[in-house]
Amino acid sequence: MLETIDLKAAVEKKVYRDTMEALDGRLSELQRAVYRAGIPVIVLFEGWDASGKGGVLGRLLQPLDPRYYKVHNIKPATAEEKMFPPLRRFWLRLPADGTMGIFNHSWYRQVLDERVADKLDRESCHGAYERVRVFERQLSDDGAVILKLFLHISQKEQAKRFKALKADPAFAWKVGVGEEQRHKNYPVFKTAVEDMIEETSTAYAPWHIVPATSERYVHTVVAEALAACLQHALEKHKPDPVYDPQLLPRHSSVLDRVDLSQTIADESYKRKLRRYQEELRRLQHLCYVKRKAAVIVYEGPDAGGKGGSIRRLVRPLDPRGYEVIPTAAPTGEERTHHYLWRFWRAVPKAGHLAIFDRSWYGRVMVERLEGFATIDEWQRAFREINEFEAQLVEAGAILIKFWVHISKEEQLARFESRQSDPTKLWKITEEDWRNREKWDAYLLAASDMIEQTSTTQAPWTVLEGNDKRFARIKALETVCARLHAALE
Amino acid sequence: MLETIDLKAAVEKKVYRDTMEALDGRLSELQRAVYRAGIPVIVLFEGWDASGKGGVLGRLLQPLDPRYYKVHNIKPATAEEKMFPPLRRFWLRLPADGTMGIFNHSWYRQVLDERVADKLDRESCHGAYERVRVFERQLSDDGAVILKLFLHISQKEQAKRFKALKADPAFAWKVGVGEEQRHKNYPVFKTAVEDMIEETSTAYAPWHIVPATSERYVHTVVAEALAACLQHALEKHKPDPVYDPQLLPRHSSVLDRVDLSQTIADESYKRKLRRYQEELRRLQHLCYVKRKAAVIVYEGPDAGGKGGSIRRLVRPLDPRGYEVIPTAAPTGEERTHHYLWRFWRAVPKAGHLAIFDRSWYGRVMVERLEGFATIDEWQRAFREINEFEAQLVEAGAILIKFWVHISKEEQLARFESRQSDPTKLWKITEEDWRNREKWDAYLLAASDMIEQTSTTQAPWTVLEGNDKRFARIKALETVCARLHAALE
Repeated sequence: MLETIDLKAAVEKKVYRDTMEALDGRLSELQRAVYRAGIPVIVLFEGWDASGKGGVLGRLLQPLDPRYYKVHNIKPATAEEKMFPPLRRFWLRLPADGTMGIFNHSWYRQVLDERVADKLDRESCHGAYERVRVFERQLSDDGAVILKLFLHISQKEQAKRFKALKADPAFAWKVGVGEEQRHKNYPVFKTAVEDMIEETSTAYAPWHIVPATSERYVHTVVAEALAACLQHALEKHKPDPVYDPQLLPRHSSVLDRVDLSQTIADESYKRKLRRYQEELRRLQHLCYVKRKAAVIVYEGPDAGGKGGSIRRLVRPLDPRGYEVIPTAAPTGEERTHHYLWRFWRAVPKAGHLAIFDRSWYGRVMVERLEGFATIDEWQRAFREINEFEAQLVEAGAILIKFWVHISKEEQLARFESRQSDPTKLWKITEEDWRNREKWDAYLLAASDMIEQTSTTQAPWTVLEGNDKRFARIKALETVCARLHAALE
Repeated sequence: MLETIDLKAAVEKKVYRDTMEALDGRLSELQRAVYRAGIPVIVLFEGWDASGKGGVLGRLLQPLDPRYYKVHNIKPATAEEKMFPPLRRFWLRLPADGTMGIFNHSWYRQVLDERVADKLDRESCHGAYERVRVFERQLSDDGAVILKLFLHISQKEQAKRFKALKADPAFAWKVGVGEEQRHKNYPVFKTAVEDMIEETSTAYAPWHIVPATSERYVHTVVAEALAACLQHALEKHKPDPVYDPQLLPRHSSVLDRVDLSQTIADESYKRKLRRYQEELRRLQHLCYVKRKAAVIVYEGPDAGGKGGSIRRLVRPLDPRGYEVIPTAAPTGEERTHHYLWRFWRAVPKAGHLAIFDRSWYGRVMVERLEGFATIDEWQRAFREINEFEAQLVEAGAILIKFWVHISKEEQLARFESRQSDPTKLWKITEEDWRNREKWDAYLLAASDMIEQTSTTQAPWTVLEGNDKRFARIKALETVCARLHAALE
């Protein structure tokens, strides 16, 4: 693949000047338009050492307003970063809507380095490639523009450039042991690069291989590519969905079959509570020692008993090892990023527990019901969520998801009790009453959610919550059983 | 000091149960009240190894709603963290308004460890103590509650506990080389702890030394201390300021004496622009090699030419080494933290440049003028800002602050030109016209700001901006001169 690239490609000085002048004006205008349209832009540079990434980057950015771009230098993951799923550190660096995130090296560096260092074959990298494809698709579906550039020079040209750098004391440090080693391994890296480009060139995020022997040529081509990308993003229209899936005929759902009459006797409750809390204390310790993360999600209607269940769950835990994360409507920079961004930020590190009081499932629940997400967006979200959770599990996390279920009558009884008890009055708001009016639509969305996102590694557990204490014990029992199974 | 503490302090079982039951109820209520009042709470635990911090923490949190606290385990700073001012990593972990940040170890660990490891005397730690006092005062002034607990046990008791831990295979890992070493060094640490407590016990953040031999005793005392703190914070009223300093008679200000008639000839502009940009490229490289950070702040009226000046400044720079940070009104989690929090997040690391298009000076400009900050708050801010900047400089940063000054007439001319030029129309908004009406008050605030925050390490430079190009050259010249002086 790479040998077909014309490395002699060049541009005349006069043509270069005129082209760049025109491109600079165009890019400056396009940047403003993209900012106004709220489109996030991701530009990433990969390429051989000494292929001139820094210089190209500098020239590309000249006409742009520096307040609305940010350059990220990607280094190998630190020990701390390695305690999270591999893509987390890139999620955290994604540009806000309307701004540009420019990556000097990127998520591809890791794949390439690991492949060569660990002498892996193409097959062994399939998981990593797939992860990257999913990542880019999710961003692209959310409206992001992704431009991926590979700056290509020959091994001979690289040798020439290294020699020039080493001759200048101010730049000699740029050619270190790593660079020399990669230079020697050029043919091995070449195969790895070709495979990578093949595996991860997609319709939504294709690779552009740029011959980088001539500085003028590479400047022109890169600026043109960015201009074309931005232009295209501004012209793109989202297709209307063909039909509203909410209009489809419904079959009986998993929630219709929940037996809410189940209860637990007082004596049995106390005994089991003690027993499972004791067990959980031990299991948390094992999680820490074995470096397993656990993610526990609570969803369910208002007054279902999520808070009380969570409190019983965390009571035996060492507070240095868990965090409870309440999820409300997104604010500030959460609003100007992909909806999964804030949850990527909250992913627990290896050995730690995170308990989510509501979660990313808001996308297919409240956002669906209130129309904050389009049909296209929340439909797509089922798959995106499964992909997100698969990455957590792949990275070693144990994922437990609870739907706390109660009947409509039980909810009313609890609302009324809160309303009439001054010490509980703070727990109930106007909004709770408004939400209650949408009970049927809410259950429909919940049924869809449970059906679409119950996977082998991350199944839903329904907690029959009309008897709060029954639900609490079932939650504790489930957490103990799942941790136990994963840790043995 | 520590030898006066009664390490035999204990509580009877029956008294313990009753006290804790009452305290649990009270703490649960207080937490809700504090949440509603939007008061941030900081609780930090220091103490000897095996003094039982984890257990105390676990018991203390039992009655609390886990959604509104977060426990931070503080480890020694990483290599990455060491490239920033020392307190940055704690600023980033501060609790949002209404929530609790609980620190297991804290900013004190660093001071203690360094003192003992580097065999420093008390004098040599003065800078570090002062930094911590400033940090806690700034937070306390902003309404935060700070509870600092030191869990004290004797060396003999520690030996006993280490023995018990090592006897149990599940806990033996808790006694490592560091623990053994600190145990041997107990007397040295004791002096260091005593000095630390003396130096950093203040009216707004006193230390509480808690005898920790008896588990029941320490649980009770810690819960009582937290309850007392929260109660006090809820009852505290801010005193009204005695007078409005804006009513004081004014003397002629530094801005009245600015000579706005200065201009630069076309030929000279082009020559100097090239020259200084070339020099700056070299200086950035030196900053990187010598690991010096630079912070450049731009303030000044709308249409003053900040953006154009910044663009000329960054053009020669390697984009991998700088960031331009535009500052607008705070949103989301920025609003629920100390006003300096978002700027602590943006502090550049050693070797990097950060250019702020408006900055923390918003506190004494727009927030003062629009009444978003009380008189007390913006008056205090002058000192807080000087302290913040002193920490940047102490950590090795070069700080350059520009006030781009133009006349009221020049602003009008630029507004009108923007209004009538379709390609510039996006640059002007209704708000710009509204701000213009407050011109005189704005200049008054700017004069105060420049007078109060021009310090030896971080002086203001006024850029005479009626001739944009004159101001641009002066900015470049100033940056080159300051970097040059700091790097030689």
